[in-house]
Amino acid sequence: MKALVLTGIEQLEIQAIPEQPLKENEVKIEMKYAGICGTDKHLYNGLPGSAKAEPPIILGHENSGVITELGPSVKSHLKIGDRVAIDPNISCGFCSFCHDNKPHLCENMEAIGVTRNGGMAEYVNVPETNVYKIPDNLSFKEAAMAEPVSCMLHAINQIDIKSHYTALVVGDGFLGQLFIKYLANHGLKKVDVSNRNPKKINLLKKIGATTVLNPEETEHNEKYDIVIECVGVTKTQERAIASAKRGGQVLMFGVGAPENIIQINPYEIFFSELTIKGAFINPHSMNEAIHVLSNQSLAVDELITHEFTLEEVPDFLSGKIKEKVTKAVINLDV
Amino acid sequence: MKALVLTGIEQLEIQAIPEQPLKENEVKIEMKYAGICGTDKHLYNGLPGSAKAEPPIILGHENSGVITELGPSVKSHLKIGDRVAIDPNISCGFCSFCHDNKPHLCENMEAIGVTRNGGMAEYVNVPETNVYKIPDNLSFKEAAMAEPVSCMLHAINQIDIKSHYTALVVGDGFLGQLFIKYLANHGLKKVDVSNRNPKKINLLKKIGATTVLNPEETEHNEKYDIVIECVGVTKTQERAIASAKRGGQVLMFGVGAPENIIQINPYEIFFSELTIKGAFINPHSMNEAIHVLSNQSLAVDELITHEFTLEEVPDFLSGKIKEKVTKAVINLDV
Amino acid sequence: MKALVLTGIEQLEIQAIPEQPLKENEVKIEMKYAGICGTDKHLYNGLPGSAKAEPPIILGHENSGVITELGPSVKSHLKIGDRVAIDPNISCGFCSFCHDNKPHLCENMEAIGVTRNGGMAEYVNVPETNVYKIPDNLSFKEAAMAEPVSCMLHAINQIDIKSHYTALVVGDGFLGQLFIKYLANHGLKKVDVSNRNPKKINLLKKIGATTVLNPEETEHNEKYDIVIECVGVTKTQERAIASAKRGGQVLMFGVGAPENIIQINPYEIFFSELTIKGAFINPHSMNEAIHVLSNQSLAVDELITHEFTLEEVPDFLSGKIKEKVTKAVINLDV
Amino acid sequence: MKALVLTGIEQLEIQAIPEQPLKENEVKIEMKYAGICGTDKHLYNGLPGSAKAEPPIILGHENSGVITELGPSVKSHLKIGDRVAIDPNISCGFCSFCHDNKPHLCENMEAIGVTRNGGMAEYVNVPETNVYKIPDNLSFKEAAMAEPVSCMLHAINQIDIKSHYTALVVGDGFLGQLFIKYLANHGLKKVDVSNRNPKKINLLKKIGATTVLNPEETEHNEKYDIVIECVGVTKTQERAIASAKRGGQVLMFGVGAPENIIQINPYEIFFSELTIKGAFINPHSMNEAIHVLSNQSLAVDELITHEFTLEEVPDFLSGKIKEKVTKAVINLDV
Ligand SMILES: NC(=O)c1ccc[n+]([C@@H]2O[C@H](COP(=O)([O-])OP(=O)(O)OC[C@H]3O[C@@H](n4cnc5c(N)ncnc54)[C@H](OP(=O)(O)O)[C@@H]3O)[C@@H](O)[C@H]2O)c1
Ligand SMILES: NC(=O)c1ccc[n+]([C@@H]2O[C@H](COP(=O)([O-])OP(=O)(O)OC[C@H]3O[C@@H](n4cnc5c(N)ncnc54)[C@H](OP(=O)(O)O)[C@@H]3O)[C@@H](O)[C@H]2O)c1
Ligand SMILES: NC(=O)c1ccc[n+]([C@@H]2O[C@H](COP(=O)([O-])OP(=O)(O)OC[C@H]3O[C@@H](n4cnc5c(N)ncnc54)[C@H](OP(=O)(O)O)[C@@H]3O)[C@@H](O)[C@H]2O)c1
Ligand SMILES: NC(=O)c1ccc[n+]([C@@H]2O[C@H](COP(=O)([O-])OP(=O)(O)OC[C@H]3O[C@@H](n4cnc5c(N)ncnc54)[C@H](OP(=O)(O)O)[C@@H]3O)[C@@H](O)[C@H]2O)c1
Ligand SMILES: [Zn+2]
Ligand SMILES: [Zn+2]
Ligand SMILES: [Zn+2]
Ligand SMILES: [Zn+2]
Repeated sequence: MKALVLTGIEQLEIQAIPEQPLKENEVKIEMKYAGICGTDKHLYNGLPGSAKAEPPIILGHENSGVITELGPSVKSHLKIGDRVAIDPNISCGFCSFCHDNKPHLCENMEAIGVTRNGGMAEYVNVPETNVYKIPDNLSFKEAAMAEPVSCMLHAINQIDIKSHYTALVVGDGFLGQLFIKYLANHGLKKVDVSNRNPKKINLLKKIGATTVLNPEETEHNEKYDIVIECVGVTKTQERAIASAKRGGQVLMFGVGAPENIIQINPYEIFFSELTIKGAFINPHSMNEAIHVLSNQSLAVDELITHEFTLEEVPDFLSGKIKEKVTKAVINLDV
Repeated sequence: MKALVLTGIEQLEIQAIPEQPLKENEVKIEMKYAGICGTDKHLYNGLPGSAKAEPPIILGHENSGVITELGPSVKSHLKIGDRVAIDPNISCGFCSFCHDNKPHLCENMEAIGVTRNGGMAEYVNVPETNVYKIPDNLSFKEAAMAEPVSCMLHAINQIDIKSHYTALVVGDGFLGQLFIKYLANHGLKKVDVSNRNPKKINLLKKIGATTVLNPEETEHNEKYDIVIECVGVTKTQERAIASAKRGGQVLMFGVGAPENIIQINPYEIFFSELTIKGAFINPHSMNEAIHVLSNQSLAVDELITHEFTLEEVPDFLSGKIKEKVTKAVINLDV
Repeated sequence: MKALVLTGIEQLEIQAIPEQPLKENEVKIEMKYAGICGTDKHLYNGLPGSAKAEPPIILGHENSGVITELGPSVKSHLKIGDRVAIDPNISCGFCSFCHDNKPHLCENMEAIGVTRNGGMAEYVNVPETNVYKIPDNLSFKEAAMAEPVSCMLHAINQIDIKSHYTALVVGDGFLGQLFIKYLANHGLKKVDVSNRNPKKINLLKKIGATTVLNPEETEHNEKYDIVIECVGVTKTQERAIASAKRGGQVLMFGVGAPENIIQINPYEIFFSELTIKGAFINPHSMNEAIHVLSNQSLAVDELITHEFTLEEVPDFLSGKIKEKVTKAVINLDV
Repeated sequence: MKALVLTGIEQLEIQAIPEQPLKENEVKIEMKYAGICGTDKHLYNGLPGSAKAEPPIILGHENSGVITELGPSVKSHLKIGDRVAIDPNISCGFCSFCHDNKPHLCENMEAIGVTRNGGMAEYVNVPETNVYKIPDNLSFKEAAMAEPVSCMLHAINQIDIKSHYTALVVGDGFLGQLFIKYLANHGLKKVDVSNRNPKKINLLKKIGATTVLNPEETEHNEKYDIVIECVGVTKTQERAIASAKRGGQVLMFGVGAPENIIQINPYEIFFSELTIKGAFINPHSMNEAIHVLSNQSLAVDELITHEFTLEEVPDFLSGKIKEKVTKAVINLDV
């Protein structure tokens, strides 16, 4: 089969490789769409994502496609021809985190497109537990967004949301935009967004932002019930925590360099009784993500700015494509 | 009546002052015991506690006593002769925090012994809503501890506790000791404590500590499901957050200088999906505190190291008394 | 002032009565709109609502208006001329339920329009804690709906809602319609409604119902993640509990006769691990209600079918008006 | 190997049968102790437990033992010689309940000792995900109690427990006794128990019961914050729900006949804002159970009244042994 193989740091190659045989409980999926996310850039550059990728490896953890083969012990109702989305994260089921209902913190986590071959290929093998049927009205392109949307929903499910709360989304990338839409759909009193790119202001307002702020240009001291950090650099992480109102909740969603340090005020955490929470990947939120995509409340199609062929991916990941990309997907159905 | 009045920064005076008339819904309480806490030292030194004290004022917010008079509109079952403990915090009932069930974050908070006269006097006037009857088996000395115990319980109620979790209590003052006892009583797998004073090691083990650590002398890299910071200096606050295990919860209970800054690792919050939570005073936890004191599960009496008369308090607050004091109370019944 | 006084069972009279003087912390409100709800019919008929009404009394607990006078001790920012909605329920602040953060279960509950004079009059006196400013874009008619909407939100806040859940609303009165709209706005996979009146089918679909079922005519065995009972008769209460899926949640919102008994299957509660929860009035949900009304997501104006003058109310409550009334309000501004 | 095989309704036979070969991810466990519970009696009588047993089958779902062999793909740290307890419930991982984090409601649930061979034999094969290492200080007899204790803990984790709450445990069998001990250990204000057997009164008081009530002999109208039903007959189920105080929580833990119907008052659920919750088996609570057993806070050894050999089990299950048995275990190590 044709696959885009990461053969070393910053080295990607289209190769013809043999298809891997299916294990007992795996299904083979003919890929239709694969999303590309910041993690893929990290892995391309030799940095870890949610885990470390050891070349040679096929990337791609935001996947949709059609089932073409079933492993000998597959017991679910999945069948050949089913249209599906894939949850990339495979937890072990026996470590203390898995036993304690925190499978996303599994000590032996494997991930499709990170520690084992992923979706930037004609076919991918996936344990049946990680395969989700999608409704007919959901396109493969949209279905490939189930993984990032499920991360967003897992984060959202960590906090207490009431309609009369105010929210600040720090960062306006693909995930920031998903959060804005979700919160606006839920009728929040205010969904401000902090952004540095003036060209996006109209788009952000269109998708539900109340006010678009650039705190680097204009000082802004408003405090919010909910703050969601979606950038991952120290400056915005510090600002996120400093922007919470008394009783407020801060979601640390953005991912920065593992060694970065930020400065925060601990008296504020006490006096304002803040809650600061990390949100890590997508446990148990794929079904919700698929529904939220299929009811079109996020209109995720409009947020995808670029569609590439597999052959175009190396230029994109190496930075040769200079345009502003909010979200890119790979069309594998060509 | 006799009262210890804070007349200015670091100025305390025993005075004979007229009793204040009762307002409509207030009751007059003849004081029996008043606890002294770190906040009292702050107020004595001109620093703010949960709020600012404006001299002349009578301090004392950990109070127990006997009702001697009822205001004209008192509607509760309280009656003259009732033995009671006092919740010092009086929320307004009409600000947006009060309306949203966060009365402890009230914009118009008043506090007995902070913004209005407190318990270091023969009598104190208290709104009936802030008065709690105590059971016969509870001494006045113990009942004066209902306020700090209710702060501890409010903090505990912020987190998810399971018996097989491990915990680290950072700091071994009166509150640290209460947390140790509470967690040990609930059968936690491990309740380690971080301490710098080697003399307390035996005491801490006796009240339930599994291991007493001095991280300034011996490096210690264990991680815990639950970490409770009970000191309030930057070093211990940073250590507390760094000691949380994946999926862990950190309670920021200690109170430091409002301007202090700490350095933390935001990647850890994301990757380990930490929850960092402030806990501020004692909303809705006085009844639970009184029960927990009365069933003797904390044996709080043994944790009180000093008992003073009102006349001895100035020497204590000015630092003239040099002994190690874990917890001091004022016996007003002499 | 002019008032509609309940002088006895099924006896209502327009009277000219003296205005009551304001108490310390009360404000006087010139009434603009008062909603009429099922409880008012119960009180008119001599039955208890959330409490018992002792004639002579002025009914009306869904109130909006303008402040015309402030009591001598009013401390909030409320001022003459403010446009406001009223929370009718006044808890005591000192009973064990109030102390335990369950003010709606207060042992000494008073309610405007039930145990003390309400809004079916030119003026009503209200403690400042129960008065909520409303935004300019909210009409008085809509603001009078803050109380029923806050009951709906309190109920909603009792359960765990995820977008991919299915819901059944049993009953299609004013509250049933509010629940349908709220759940549809939150993107639920399915919001079916159980109804017996075929004339309402189109309306219900328009406001968000997926399917309108009449289980008395067509058998229907579907099970739901969320079931909300909004009728209060035994048949629908039994059906509601029987309609919950494994892991499902049932809200018992409808109010029936206190002596009614229903038959349920306890094995189902165990085997399907059901949660059955009562929801009682509106603690801490007025601010959220006012926001939800003001963002027009419920379009509550369209659900109000009738507007009466005070003079027309006796004929309505006595049943002389024969039309189908989903929700009626009294315009007091005429 | 030697095994006690259920060959038909009310037919048990000691047989010598071949050991089953290990599947990929299974481990073989030499049995030490197997508990017997009410479910085993149901299965013996041809009634379903949490699922249906199809003879010929080996019962036994409360198991402890030593690992003697590892399947070829076992990846966990388990090794030959490990002392272990077993979680009997094997969820599929791919149904909608498993995907939604409700594995105990799995549509394809298998259970060791119910749908596949269990622990009343010399050896049992178990997927590695269902095997839990036990600490050295925990005896095999106690470890066999991990399953019932984990059911108790899962139930406990469904409700909100505060120290000053009062509780009623309805039923005083093995599970009722576990609940009494657990709640007493957590310092509840009152842990009453409802019982019909006067001989147990002293024992129940010894393990923590405040008052032992026999409501069939003496009327008793007290209401409780927490009620736990541990019998499963209609009379006690009705009484349990009727015994909840305003704001109270009722756990429906006991298992009755699937067709039974009870009568309850729905107005009470509304007016008292009750929460009635089922609790089904033991998701994610085995680790906590093993810790709670190993810290001896339940002293479970003292609650086990009978120890049988495998050969004695048929007489016990057929009712030939007439003594009062609270809890029986099978010693397979003889
Ligand atoms: N927690 C989880 O499970 C999870 C899951 C998925 C993603 N993530 C993380 O969430 C974050 C957002 O993801 P995404 O897909 O939305 O990424 P993205 O599309 O690359 O967006 C990044 C955003 O950060 C802004 N930004 C980048 N560098 C900045 C800087 N130095 N100062 C200020 N703003 C800066 C960008 O602004 P410009 O457009 O102006 O450059 C953009 O708004 C990433 O860190 C990602 O790793 C976390
Ligand atoms: N969140 C709330 O609602 C709330 C309520 C009550 C109290 N508090 C706060 O909780 C904290 C503990 O209260 P407490 O009554 O237990 O106070 P405390 O009795 O004064 O105890 C303070 C503890 O901190 C240690 N400590 C002090 N300075 C230190 C330093 N520089 N380095 C390391 N350790 C140091 C002390 O050790 P030594 O004994 O060796 O000096 C002692 O163990 C305080 O900050 C207090 O303000 C918060
Ligand atoms: N929990 C709380 O805090 C709270 C707050 C407010 C209201 N409530 C209660 O919630 C319920 C709904 O309030 P609402 O204002 O929506 O009342 P409503 O407008 O009178 O609506 C009642 C609904 O029940 C239906 N119904 C009446 N009798 C029926 C019967 N015998 N069989 C089947 N359906 C029947 C009606 O259908 P038709 O239109 O065909 O007659 C209508 O759909 C009431 O019980 C009310 O007391 C509770
Ligand atoms: N939810 C779950 O996941 C789960 C897990 C395990 C067990 N269970 C269920 O929990 C219940 C208790 O288990 P267990 O092991 O404690 O059972 P058990 O030892 O048999 O105890 C049963 C208790 O119910 C009493 N009882 C029996 N019939 C009665 C009647 N007609 N009237 C009044 N009391 C009666 C018994 O009293 P005497 O001693 O006087 O007969 C005894 O106190 C059972 O229904 C069991 O199936 C549920
Ligand atoms: Zn794992
Ligand atoms: Zn306030
Ligand atoms: Zn009250
Ligand atoms: Zn399953």
